[in-house]
Amino acid sequence: MQLGNVVVGQSGGPTSVINSSLVGVFKTAKDAGCPHVYGMRNGIEGLLKENFIEMSDYVKNDLDIELLKRTPSSFLGTCRYKLPDFTKDEETYKKIFAILNKMDIKHFFYIGGNDSMDTIDKLSKYSEIIKSDITFIGIPKTIDNDLACTDHTPGYGSAAKYIAAAMKEIIRDATTYSTDSINVVEIMGRDAGWLTCAATLSRSEDCAGPDIICLPEKVFDYDKFMNKIADIRKEKKVITIAVSEGIKTADGKYVCEANRRSMTEDAFGHKTLGGTALYLADFIGGETGVKSRGIVFSTLQRCASHLVSRRDITEAFTAGADGVQLALNGETGKMITFERISNNPYQLKTSSCPASAVANVAKMVPDEWIINDGAYVSKEFAEYARPLIIGELSPFMVDGLPRHLFLD
Amino acid sequence: MQLGNVVVGQSGGPTSVINSSLVGVFKTAKDAGCPHVYGMRNGIEGLLKENFIEMSDYVKNDLDIELLKRTPSSFLGTCRYKLPDFTKDEETYKKIFAILNKMDIKHFFYIGGNDSMDTIDKLSKYSEIIKSDITFIGIPKTIDNDLACTDHTPGYGSAAKYIAAAMKEIIRDATTYSTDSINVVEIMGRDAGWLTCAATLSRSEDCAGPDIICLPEKVFDYDKFMNKIADIRKEKKVITIAVSEGIKTADGKYVCEANRRSMTEDAFGHKTLGGTALYLADFIGGETGVKSRGIVFSTLQRCASHLVSRRDITEAFTAGADGVQLALNGETGKMITFERISNNPYQLKTSSCPASAVANVAKMVPDEWIINDGAYVSKEFAEYARPLIIGELSPFMVDGLPRHLFLD
Repeated sequence: MQLGNVVVGQSGGPTSVINSSLVGVFKTAKDAGCPHVYGMRNGIEGLLKENFIEMSDYVKNDLDIELLKRTPSSFLGTCRYKLPDFTKDEETYKKIFAILNKMDIKHFFYIGGNDSMDTIDKLSKYSEIIKSDITFIGIPKTIDNDLACTDHTPGYGSAAKYIAAAMKEIIRDATTYSTDSINVVEIMGRDAGWLTCAATLSRSEDCAGPDIICLPEKVFDYDKFMNKIADIRKEKKVITIAVSEGIKTADGKYVCEANRRSMTEDAFGHKTLGGTALYLADFIGGETGVKSRGIVFSTLQRCASHLVSRRDITEAFTAGADGVQLALNGETGKMITFERISNNPYQLKTSSCPASAVANVAKMVPDEWIINDGAYVSKEFAEYARPLIIGELSPFMVDGLPRHLFLD
Repeated sequence: MQLGNVVVGQSGGPTSVINSSLVGVFKTAKDAGCPHVYGMRNGIEGLLKENFIEMSDYVKNDLDIELLKRTPSSFLGTCRYKLPDFTKDEETYKKIFAILNKMDIKHFFYIGGNDSMDTIDKLSKYSEIIKSDITFIGIPKTIDNDLACTDHTPGYGSAAKYIAAAMKEIIRDATTYSTDSINVVEIMGRDAGWLTCAATLSRSEDCAGPDIICLPEKVFDYDKFMNKIADIRKEKKVITIAVSEGIKTADGKYVCEANRRSMTEDAFGHKTLGGTALYLADFIGGETGVKSRGIVFSTLQRCASHLVSRRDITEAFTAGADGVQLALNGETGKMITFERISNNPYQLKTSSCPASAVANVAKMVPDEWIINDGAYVSKEFAEYARPLIIGELSPFMVDGLPRHLFLD
C-alpha cells in the first residue's frame, strides 16, 4: 500500500525523547514514499487553526534527524486540549475532518499519553461513523510510565536515568558534610509513582540510594513517616527521601495543598501540583531540629536531553516508525505498545492495542513491588527498570553546550 | 628539594571538580617522592580529631585517579570550621601543630574558598611565629567564582556549564506550550552573581536565553522588576528569569526572607538562603495572572559531575599540582591563582598570591558588565565565561549511571 499524506502532532507534557518518535514517524513515512509529512503546531489546537509545517522544510538531512533526536521538549509544540464528545459537539469533528480532507491527509499520528489516546480513540470512532478512510494511530509518550497495555513508555527510561543519576549526585553532595541532614527530593508523578521509584536505581556499590520512597499509590501518613525517619536516624546522619509530588493523606488531600494558597487545574481537570518537598522538609526540620532541605527536579527531569537513555531514544524512534507501519497495514484507532520478551538479555518487540484501552486510564506501580510498609520499592522494580536506563547518546556540543533543532 | 609528608583537606561547599584538585595534589606529591599523602576527613575538623586516611590506600592506580576526577562533592568530606584568632585562643593552634608534628607532616594543602584561605593565612602566620618549617598552601575552589586575585576559580566552569545547559533545556521545555508562562530560576550566589550570569551563556543561535537576570550586586526593586516583565510580555509569551538566591531589596533584606519563617546561620555567620524563585514566581503570578513557576537548581548545580567542563577539570588538577610545586619551592601562606594570557586562543598560566589577599574577601561581577538597568549582563561577560565551559569529560557509566569513587 502506498502511504498518503501524513499529519503528526505532539501532545501533553514534553519529554527528552518525544522528538525521536517524531523523527521515527517522519523518516519512515518519507522512506515509504509519503508525499507530505505535515506537523501540527501545538497538537490538535494547531490543527484546528490550520497551523502546520511541512516537516521536510525543517528536517532536511540525516544531521537534522540526529539533532532532532537529541532535542528535548516537543519540537512541534504541545497542547492540553480535550476533544468534546462528538454526540454533544459534532462541529469540532466536522472542522477537523474538513481540514484533513482539504490537505488530502490519509494518516494521522498523535504522540502522547493517555489523554492523547482519548483523542485518537474519539477521532477514529468518528472517522468510522462518517466512513472516512483516514487512519488514526497513537504513539505512546510519557515520562510517567503510566500507560496501560505496554511494558513501559518512551520517555520513562530517560527521565528515570536522570532521576537516578541526579539522586546519586545529591546523596554524594549531602554526605560530604559531617553534620546531620535530611533531604527531601520531589519527583513528578500525580497518580503513579513510577518516576519516584526510579530514585532507587541510584542504589549501587558506590551509593546507598534513598532511605525512604513515598509513592502516590499509598496513603501518606505523617506519624508513620516520622517514625520511619526516627528509626533511620538511629543509624545514619544523612537521610535522603524521594517523594512523588502526588502523595496524598488519608483525607484525599495532596500533601502539597497544605502549603499552597490555591491549586489551579488544567484542561483535563488535573490540579497543578508542586511544593511537596519544601513543605515536608520544613515539617521534618520543625519536628526533628535537623537541617533539612527540599530539592525539586521540576521540569529538568523531563527535558534533560544531555543525559538520555540511548535505549529510550531508540525505542521512541521505533514506536514512531512502527506506528507508520500500522497505518500502512490499514489499522486505525490503535496505539503502539511494547512487549518485553526477556530481561536478560533485554529483548523487546512492538505490538498494538486499541487506543480506547489506554485512554484516561493510569497504570500504577504493582502493589507487590511496594515494600517496607509503603516506604520503599522492591528489587523486582529495579530489575524491571534497570534495562530502560542503559546506554547514552552524546549531545552535539557547540560552544560548550548541547545544540538543539528548533522552530521559531 | 625532597617533599616531606603531605596532608590535604577539602573545605566549604563541594563542587564537581574539587576532587580533581585533590588528585592533582596527591599525584604530584607522590611523583615528587612524598612518602605519605594523608587526607583529613572533613577538613580541619577531622585534623583536630586526628581523623586521617592514607590517600594511596584508596587511590591505588590510574583508573582510581580518573574515577576520582569524575566524582563530585568532596571525597574527603568537608566542614565549615572557622579557626579562632591565635592571639585569643592559642590552644587550637598548639593542638594542630602537635598533630602535624606527630605525623611528621611538612606540607599542608587546603582546597577551598575565601573562608579556607583564612585558615591558610592564620596557620601560616602562626607557623612563622613558632618557627615551624611546615608550609601552608591554598588551592582555590568555589563554584561562586568570587575569589580575589584569580581570573576565575576551579569549580565555576562546570557549574556555569550545568546552569547554561539546564537553562537551555528549561527554556526549550517552557516554550513548547502555546500558553503564556513566566519561569523564575534560582541560582546559587550569596554576594556575587557570577553563577547567575552564566544563565546568559544559554543564549545562542538555537536559544533566546533568559529575559531578565537579577544579581546580588544590584538592589532588587519590585516595581522596576514588574515593569521590565510588563515590557517583555508585550513581545513574548514565555518569559524566563534567572535570579541569584542572594538578591536583596533596598532595606538590605534578602528577597527570600519574605517567605521564610526563620533563617539559620552557618559557622561563618552566613544566613542559609533559598526560596527566592518560589516567592517571586508566586508574586509574579499574583500580579500578572500568568502561570508562573519557580525552579531551583539547588545542590545539582555544584554536584552534577555528569556534565562537567573538561577545561575546568583540567585546570582544577593543575591548581592542585602547581600548589605542590609552590610547596617544593618552599613557599607558604599562598594560594594558587590563574592568570588569563589571552582569550582567543584561550591561554592560562598559574601564579600565586598571599592567602591573606583572598581570605574573607568576595569578588563581585564588574559593574560595567551589568547592563539594562541591572536586569542583564553584557557580552563581555559571555566572552569571559564561554571559554570556561568548553569541553566534556565523559563519566564512567556502570549499569546506566555515572560511577564514583567514595569513602565510607
